[in-house]
Amino acid sequence: MIEKLALIGIGLIGSSIARGARRAGLAKTIAIATRRQETLDEAERLGLGDQYFTSAADAVRDADLVILCAPVGAYEALAKDISGSLKPGAILSDVGSVKKHVVDVVSPYVPAGVHFIPGHPLAGTEHSGPSAGFADLFENRWCVLTPVEGASSDAIAMLTAFWKGLGSDVETMSPEHHDLVLAITSHVPHLVAYNIVGTVADLEEHTQSEVIKFSASGFRDFTRIAASDPVMWRDVFLTNREAVLEMLGRFLEDLSVLQRAVRIGDGDALETLFTRTRTIRRSIIAAGQETAAPDFGRPHGDGKASE
Amino acid sequence: MIEKLALIGIGLIGSSIARGARRAGLAKTIAIATRRQETLDEAERLGLGDQYFTSAADAVRDADLVILCAPVGAYEALAKDISGSLKPGAILSDVGSVKKHVVDVVSPYVPAGVHFIPGHPLAGTEHSGPSAGFADLFENRWCVLTPVEGASSDAIAMLTAFWKGLGSDVETMSPEHHDLVLAITSHVPHLVAYNIVGTVADLEEHTQSEVIKFSASGFRDFTRIAASDPVMWRDVFLTNREAVLEMLGRFLEDLSVLQRAVRIGDGDALETLFTRTRTIRRSIIAAGQETAAPDFGRPHGDGKASE
Repeated sequence: MIEKLALIGIGLIGSSIARGARRAGLAKTIAIATRRQETLDEAERLGLGDQYFTSAADAVRDADLVILCAPVGAYEALAKDISGSLKPGAILSDVGSVKKHVVDVVSPYVPAGVHFIPGHPLAGTEHSGPSAGFADLFENRWCVLTPVEGASSDAIAMLTAFWKGLGSDVETMSPEHHDLVLAITSHVPHLVAYNIVGTVADLEEHTQSEVIKFSASGFRDFTRIAASDPVMWRDVFLTNREAVLEMLGRFLEDLSVLQRAVRIGDGDALETLFTRTRTIRRSIIAAGQETAAPDFGRPHGDGKASE
Repeated sequence: MIEKLALIGIGLIGSSIARGARRAGLAKTIAIATRRQETLDEAERLGLGDQYFTSAADAVRDADLVILCAPVGAYEALAKDISGSLKPGAILSDVGSVKKHVVDVVSPYVPAGVHFIPGHPLAGTEHSGPSAGFADLFENRWCVLTPVEGASSDAIAMLTAFWKGLGSDVETMSPEHHDLVLAITSHVPHLVAYNIVGTVADLEEHTQSEVIKFSASGFRDFTRIAASDPVMWRDVFLTNREAVLEMLGRFLEDLSVLQRAVRIGDGDALETLFTRTRTIRRSIIAAGQETAAPDFGRPHGDGKASE
């Protein structure tokens, strides 16, 4: 059990950590900091912590574990702000979706004696804010830690135990490898989803093409990840540019081949691809990372039980 | 109530019609035809109908309503096959995802006195086969009818009542308009999903990039529609080529703009798009075409209730 946990930022992820840590008894005291008074008041109304601050520096004082849960674009200023208030021996971590950039902008402000171990829980929903969090969010999901060279193995073990206490499986890798893997498993899928929803929004606006009315024919699946937090995702694309452009390039090459198959009517090529992609979902379900229920288990028939 | 309903094809859609029609008492007798004996045996084991045939021509005899529920690529041969066995005054319909092509290949075989009214229920899951269907599938979903010029208004009213009996809302439009709307709400989303899952499958195979392991970070959403029936979707892209290429062109134009915004680091452009797309999902939820539950209501924490 940690004496004092400080969460800097209390949106979907921060508030889920707070709830999960409370439920599992992972910290005696939970300090919460967020810049906006309104958000802080909401966190307090929800009873997410024990101490509430609008100043991150005030929140981290005496904390054994500090986790940055704000958008990545705010990290540099936050690191500068808290640098002088971090307790010697404390662990500083985060939950950002990119890791190389985080190492670059935070490291210069980490005082000697503080263990900086960047992290990224691969979990979330399309909802945002303190009320969107829930204690189960991290259960059976991966949390990736990207410790810098020479990081204390005791500190890594402690942070690993913390995430396991929240229900996560923990994996360690380099920041660069993390950013490349996440570019294709997360960042490019989000970019593509944002893009197709944007294309459709234009059509809806200019041609009354009834896309919202008929969205259940496939389109609505894309709208979930395209409803994710705009500021968070802006920062992802600003800070993982090279890996995103590399993976987007691969996606576009493949799409050109597929576009040509449609144009020339190559049914064999289409059927081969469509059969192959079906097996990928089966692998994900077998790996315990997806529900086997049809249609994600969405309610059908106004929530009445299906036959 | 219809005296005799004949379903030609008994996959996800056909079997859902059978179950829904049975539950709502829409037909006295349900005849089921499918080419493969194994599939027919499964349908019989499931008790989906009253009569079972491997010959479509045998199934449609004396039927008042005949619905083609096979992949669109099989329609021409089926229409030719059943042409001489259709009862005068019968309604012939279908559930295919494209409509102009269906009108082109089926109409020549529709005898005088038979009412041909193509249809398309905008409902489905990623699962296939007779056991994948359920009676609630069409509830609160749109069914689009695309009657040809001069179609009997009595026959249209009867088919409309049938789909309303299954829980659907019914809309009538031209085959051409249907194909353009579905190209962007369904066909291009499926193409893009198939493509990104294919790109990722290549990476998984060649670089062990751990995409399945970390799929919950966004990618897995795409795998659902990319797990849809391969033959059905092959036929969609073979038979709605022009509309798909037109809408894919728009998608690619927009993606070029977005790719450039990432490359030059235009945070304002990114945030503006990401904010706009968020409102589209809210509209779809408000229109009753999507669940408001976070993450599609997927189970979290091994199915335990969320806090």
